[in-house]
Amino acid sequence: MEERVYNFSAGPAVMPLPVIEKAQKDLLCLPGAGASIMEISHRSKTFDAIINGAKENIRKLYNLPENYRVFFMQGGALTQFALAPINLAQGKTPDYIVTGTWSKKASGEAKTQGPVNIVWDGKAVDGAFRRKPTADEYKLNPEAPYCYITGNETIEGIEWQSEPDTGDVPIVCDSSSNIFSKPLDINKYGLLYACAQKNAGPAGVTVLILREDLLERSADNLPSLFSYKKVEAGNSMVNTPPTFAIYMLGLVTDWLLNEIGGLDKMQAINQKKAKMLYDVIDASNGYYKGHAEKAYRSMMNVPFRLPSEELDNKFKADAAAVGLASLGGHRSVGGLRASIYNAMPVAGVEKLVTFMEDFQKKNS
Amino acid sequence: MEERVYNFSAGPAVMPLPVIEKAQKDLLCLPGAGASIMEISHRSKTFDAIINGAKENIRKLYNLPENYRVFFMQGGALTQFALAPINLAQGKTPDYIVTGTWSKKASGEAKTQGPVNIVWDGKAVDGAFRRKPTADEYKLNPEAPYCYITGNETIEGIEWQSEPDTGDVPIVCDSSSNIFSKPLDINKYGLLYACAQKNAGPAGVTVLILREDLLERSADNLPSLFSYKKVEAGNSMVNTPPTFAIYMLGLVTDWLLNEIGGLDKMQAINQKKAKMLYDVIDASNGYYKGHAEKAYRSMMNVPFRLPSEELDNKFKADAAAVGLASLGGHRSVGGLRASIYNAMPVAGVEKLVTFMEDFQKKNS
Repeated sequence: MEERVYNFSAGPAVMPLPVIEKAQKDLLCLPGAGASIMEISHRSKTFDAIINGAKENIRKLYNLPENYRVFFMQGGALTQFALAPINLAQGKTPDYIVTGTWSKKASGEAKTQGPVNIVWDGKAVDGAFRRKPTADEYKLNPEAPYCYITGNETIEGIEWQSEPDTGDVPIVCDSSSNIFSKPLDINKYGLLYACAQKNAGPAGVTVLILREDLLERSADNLPSLFSYKKVEAGNSMVNTPPTFAIYMLGLVTDWLLNEIGGLDKMQAINQKKAKMLYDVIDASNGYYKGHAEKAYRSMMNVPFRLPSEELDNKFKADAAAVGLASLGGHRSVGGLRASIYNAMPVAGVEKLVTFMEDFQKKNS
Repeated sequence: MEERVYNFSAGPAVMPLPVIEKAQKDLLCLPGAGASIMEISHRSKTFDAIINGAKENIRKLYNLPENYRVFFMQGGALTQFALAPINLAQGKTPDYIVTGTWSKKASGEAKTQGPVNIVWDGKAVDGAFRRKPTADEYKLNPEAPYCYITGNETIEGIEWQSEPDTGDVPIVCDSSSNIFSKPLDINKYGLLYACAQKNAGPAGVTVLILREDLLERSADNLPSLFSYKKVEAGNSMVNTPPTFAIYMLGLVTDWLLNEIGGLDKMQAINQKKAKMLYDVIDASNGYYKGHAEKAYRSMMNVPFRLPSEELDNKFKADAAAVGLASLGGHRSVGGLRASIYNAMPVAGVEKLVTFMEDFQKKNS
């Protein structure tokens, strides 16, 4: 087998090696099932144990109170950009705090369903998305059906370090690129959702954690799979769910619980990796320029630039040649980006920072 | 590794063994990618080749003319039950021919979007879904935006042997349980779609084949992932697609083209398997009772009953004990059902029919 690279892709992204190894070992025949996980009925006892195990793992990881429900959907965050207002707005105007490409996109999709109140837009204020707003910069509507935030802006590398104070208005949070990266107080959220393909598994399944009183907001005449209430009530199996992706999500959350030891431990490892990378950027005398303001830097995605686009490209090519892969920035912004999700080993970041130091010496 | 059973599950269902073996071999590191197929960016050249290869395979299998587009979505057929009227009805009333549980369900979901004209309902006419209507039993609306059919009713085992004549009204067909099972003349269809988990791959991806003039019917203000036009224009990558499921779909369609030799060959094998099974039922002097009328029998799903529910249960248990698995009927109807999709080997059906003959002798 050829060698695996260190894969800094923003998503689909690196997964824990022991998880892929286990999936590989059992791919032809899941123990006790006589068939591949891809081939067994979602109505089987075997799959019941898998989906309930994945849900239970998520409950444990976030220490969820009884009044939160975990369920799974398809279609990634982009589908939720529409389903959140469809299920939760109830004809009222939600607040959106726009801190980057993804919250901007979410507000745009929500506008297909009705009016949206943009309470702050970083690009309008600063000319570029580089930070979260401070509390005195925006005014929330206490009557809003929800307040929308993007927990971590994958493209700009900006992360909410603590949740905005929304009072009694539930926060709806897209946590696609920082789910399971750190503990959180779920009581501050009405809905937290995430596509799997960054920190939770392969592309094709979306995790939703919803406060149960919000289930009642879904209109009864929605198509089954547009309805949070119907999908949750059907244990995420109103129709055939993406069984393989849910199986992998189960293995990833097993790994987080049993091999990593929970989200406190995961956060400590993530902080260490992020610090290594930001320290090299900060020590480079401006050779490497991070995109986000320091106080709002993401622990998951580190976008940066070199002094010229030529150097960006040379960096990318030279890095790829030594097995540091997928360091290009998002096609919409260019530059470079190192995504250092849960499954990126410390050794991968060590190799990257050493490469960065060497590259600067040779190319200054 | 424990032994693989013969898996007669209705879906997720048996997949071709060489396909799973190839996926297993490459799961840790896709050749040339340095990472698992689950870990690579959907914007990479590697994935571009995979998704375009899968599309091209589908074009070849059905010999698609230029004016048909192939694209992929998530959420299975149940999502299409809503998206078909959302994209294609344009405020007009579509015709639905209700021949079983799935077309009934499709019409129900469509009703969330506006009125639906049920032109024939087999259960209302016959008391149970056992056949397709003859042409003189229903009258189609020549002004309908489309006429909906379910190509194969998985639960009742009823299949359209040839398409209804809808004149200029495009047929919208749910082909979830018989896609790729036989050649078809796509020119009779406006839209043919199928979830993958029966004949096309693992659960989590839906194949759509749409006549290109129908793309223009989608309203511009739909959420991105609800819009056929936007998803097709984005090469099924408006957001991260279910990369692993599309990869598997590529491998399954490779197998159909290169190992089976196309859909004529596949149909011949499927006809042989279905004949073996129906012959045993017909030779059993009523011990085994097929559900569907003979002229409408499905080549993919064979529901049947024994003289009593006790015998149904004994059959299921005894069969499972010798490696003939997942023969239970759908939870909504009970009885037994053998799903004999493309990937079910002839040897599996041989073993089943021998078992059926023996079981009848011992339990008459």
